[in-house]
Amino acid sequence: MTKGGSSGLDRREFLRTGAAGLAAGAVSGCGTPVAGQEAQPGGREAPSGTAAVPGELGAPPAQPLSAPPIERVRIGYVGVGGMGTAHVRNLVRIDGCVITAVCDIREEHAERAAGLIEEAGHPRPALYTAGETDFERLCAEEDLDLVYNATPWRWHVPICVAAMENGKHAATEVPAAYTLDGCWELVETAERTSRHCTMMENVNYGRAELLCLNLVRQGLLGEILHAECGYLHDLRGIKFADDGEGLWRRDHSWTRNGNLYPTHGLGPVANCMNINRGDRFAHLVSMSSPSRGLQEWAVANYPEGHPKRAETFALGDVNGSLIQTAMGKTIYVAHDTNLPRPYDRINKVQGTRGIFQGYPDRVYIEGRSESHRWDEAEGYYEEFEHPLWRALREASIGAGHGGMDFMEDYRLVKCLREGLPLDMNVYDAAALSAVCELSEISVANGSAPVEFPDFTRGKWREWAPWQIVGA
Amino acid sequence: MTKGGSSGLDRREFLRTGAAGLAAGAVSGCGTPVAGQEAQPGGREAPSGTAAVPGELGAPPAQPLSAPPIERVRIGYVGVGGMGTAHVRNLVRIDGCVITAVCDIREEHAERAAGLIEEAGHPRPALYTAGETDFERLCAEEDLDLVYNATPWRWHVPICVAAMENGKHAATEVPAAYTLDGCWELVETAERTSRHCTMMENVNYGRAELLCLNLVRQGLLGEILHAECGYLHDLRGIKFADDGEGLWRRDHSWTRNGNLYPTHGLGPVANCMNINRGDRFAHLVSMSSPSRGLQEWAVANYPEGHPKRAETFALGDVNGSLIQTAMGKTIYVAHDTNLPRPYDRINKVQGTRGIFQGYPDRVYIEGRSESHRWDEAEGYYEEFEHPLWRALREASIGAGHGGMDFMEDYRLVKCLREGLPLDMNVYDAAALSAVCELSEISVANGSAPVEFPDFTRGKWREWAPWQIVGA
Repeated sequence: MTKGGSSGLDRREFLRTGAAGLAAGAVSGCGTPVAGQEAQPGGREAPSGTAAVPGELGAPPAQPLSAPPIERVRIGYVGVGGMGTAHVRNLVRIDGCVITAVCDIREEHAERAAGLIEEAGHPRPALYTAGETDFERLCAEEDLDLVYNATPWRWHVPICVAAMENGKHAATEVPAAYTLDGCWELVETAERTSRHCTMMENVNYGRAELLCLNLVRQGLLGEILHAECGYLHDLRGIKFADDGEGLWRRDHSWTRNGNLYPTHGLGPVANCMNINRGDRFAHLVSMSSPSRGLQEWAVANYPEGHPKRAETFALGDVNGSLIQTAMGKTIYVAHDTNLPRPYDRINKVQGTRGIFQGYPDRVYIEGRSESHRWDEAEGYYEEFEHPLWRALREASIGAGHGGMDFMEDYRLVKCLREGLPLDMNVYDAAALSAVCELSEISVANGSAPVEFPDFTRGKWREWAPWQIVGA
Repeated sequence: MTKGGSSGLDRREFLRTGAAGLAAGAVSGCGTPVAGQEAQPGGREAPSGTAAVPGELGAPPAQPLSAPPIERVRIGYVGVGGMGTAHVRNLVRIDGCVITAVCDIREEHAERAAGLIEEAGHPRPALYTAGETDFERLCAEEDLDLVYNATPWRWHVPICVAAMENGKHAATEVPAAYTLDGCWELVETAERTSRHCTMMENVNYGRAELLCLNLVRQGLLGEILHAECGYLHDLRGIKFADDGEGLWRRDHSWTRNGNLYPTHGLGPVANCMNINRGDRFAHLVSMSSPSRGLQEWAVANYPEGHPKRAETFALGDVNGSLIQTAMGKTIYVAHDTNLPRPYDRINKVQGTRGIFQGYPDRVYIEGRSESHRWDEAEGYYEEFEHPLWRALREASIGAGHGGMDFMEDYRLVKCLREGLPLDMNVYDAAALSAVCELSEISVANGSAPVEFPDFTRGKWREWAPWQIVGA
């Protein structure tokens, strides 16, 4: 971690002080992505710090990792607050895995998880509750196949790295990292240790998202050219809460201005567009609205003199980014968590023959739909329901977020048991998570284009798309 | 026109050859638009050709133009194809105006309009059908108050300029211009001649758009921070038609890549955000998807060897732009006319207390709506219907685009008769239309930020918002 941390500081330093050079470089370096013609990311000098590949990396692997099959997956779970506990509830219902260790800074949370595990008929897990870095002891001392964490964002990279350095596979809640250095550290460690490092993007398993993917794979939408997505969720109450995410999530809004949470929107779109599997994110531009929502919420909800009323926030209430892929495809991705509004992820995937759009879910397919009129997506499930949902819908009832949390845990365990590549590999986790810092850099530089690192170092041209997987 | 045309060529030359310098300049010039703090467009050097103010301009007027009242508005109508004829049908029903001259390159179109005018009980108008520039003779020879045109885009600026140079007010279909030079030429001519030059943006009078504006003006959405809008309309059949817009509209897609048609989406949003009346468009970034839709449509609809199958297109099928205002507000504006899809303009206006969103129309207002749930907009009309719609809804039935075309014609005539400032002045027309070329420049430069000209030269700080107007 020392190495990654120190080279990381350098890169950040460069980026924050080198704004003018960055911008000019980014632009001349990006060139004009001509439709249907690759931007050839391998064939030219990295024009800015954002795209640079760390020198310490060796050659990328020929294929994303497949690890030897594991008959019974022994899991150490780190962070059993709200989301972690939901995963524990799923995992104790999935065949072929057992949670043998639990880590949390709050003993009562660890005990609650232990209770769920024992209730399911498993032995009592070892508990690690001796402070913020006790996951290091868990990673070093326990005999585990997988360390799976649902902790505050700043712990995702250290926990994954500690897991891999100790020979365990790593799974993390989203985002896997929120700096480019963190993304590279995950890639570098996964490659050096030959361990999985996956990001648990539950929305990739949403019923509507997988219906859309199925339509894409069957060619009904034609060639995918454009998508719009995002995370539009009024989190004011959660950010200001005195427990749970309120203890850490609001802090990011103090100092960071960009898309803090891009992966729920981008994950499913990246699958439809074959990101890192035939295409890749090439560059982005980002823009943030003024910051008002959190300040006004504090004034409306706390008495005069309360310290939360004195907090100030860098985070623009609405951030919008435009991403262009190497093949010229475009994505609009929004982040909107500080204003009163109903939940939305947009979820629009558009191709040459049709379009899928969420909220409400609808489909238009040329030649099938009535001209210029949407079909309700509901009518497509009978014919096009994703096999995973056909198989697991009943089993997932009651699990988090409409069942998709169960699907993602199920697929993780299955792939580990069968020695399959994971649905999301470390390169995917890095590409999706990189949007955090890249958007911040673009916003800080007047929406200047910034380039994505190619975490695959050219292998995106060879790797195969994520197929329609089953249970 | 010679002067504008020649200085225009220079500016375009600079923009197309000076990409690297432009980008670096645009970025360092834009700086970081800090929330709630103006970017002070008047107080710094214009960093790129896009923001430069032509030298020949005098001081801007203290207020947008109010011309002397006109009891009976005499109108010369230029271009009576589909849209022009729709306006003629409206105008013959509106008190206090008469169409005394009609110009079209097709005599049968001019005759059709003359018939409509006579049927309505007015004298037969003079007809001008002697070729593409016969509008010049109309402007020079006829005794008119207003020259109103609905012609192919390339004629909008020449016709408006000819009208104003001959002492007539000018009204044009959208976009008013599609180059920055064209925008400036309209501003310069309007100021020098003290004539109106308005752009007839019918969507500004849409029922849902005016409901939303009414909610904004009554403060129900709080401070407006962000908007999303666009023109998402499958025009493939229209672009390839052998008549009407098919004769010229497709041509723009051959060579231009950007947002070719921004004003329908942006017009209503600009009103909600008080653009040129307390705020202004400051800079944009733009990105285009690959170009596939028109090529594929030609292959699917014409036999082998047909010349239309050999056409190639520069226009990316989906263009997305992000605009930031001087006050830091953000707008996403989309252009999507080459792919199969149902019609949409997005129409999202978001503030600190609520949000309006179109397709389907819905409203969320904190404290009024059920928490985290949309209300159907339908339920808001009883209380918040815009006065114009309350007064004219019955009268507008049967007019184009659900009645809004009638509203815009009605307001134009009313304002001219009463000597009021027009709902949209030449600065608004220029700011909205400037997105055409600015988006093309950004796309051509790898999505680099480009600055808007301040057509008001600082007066946007003083001019009053467009009020809730009546009939």
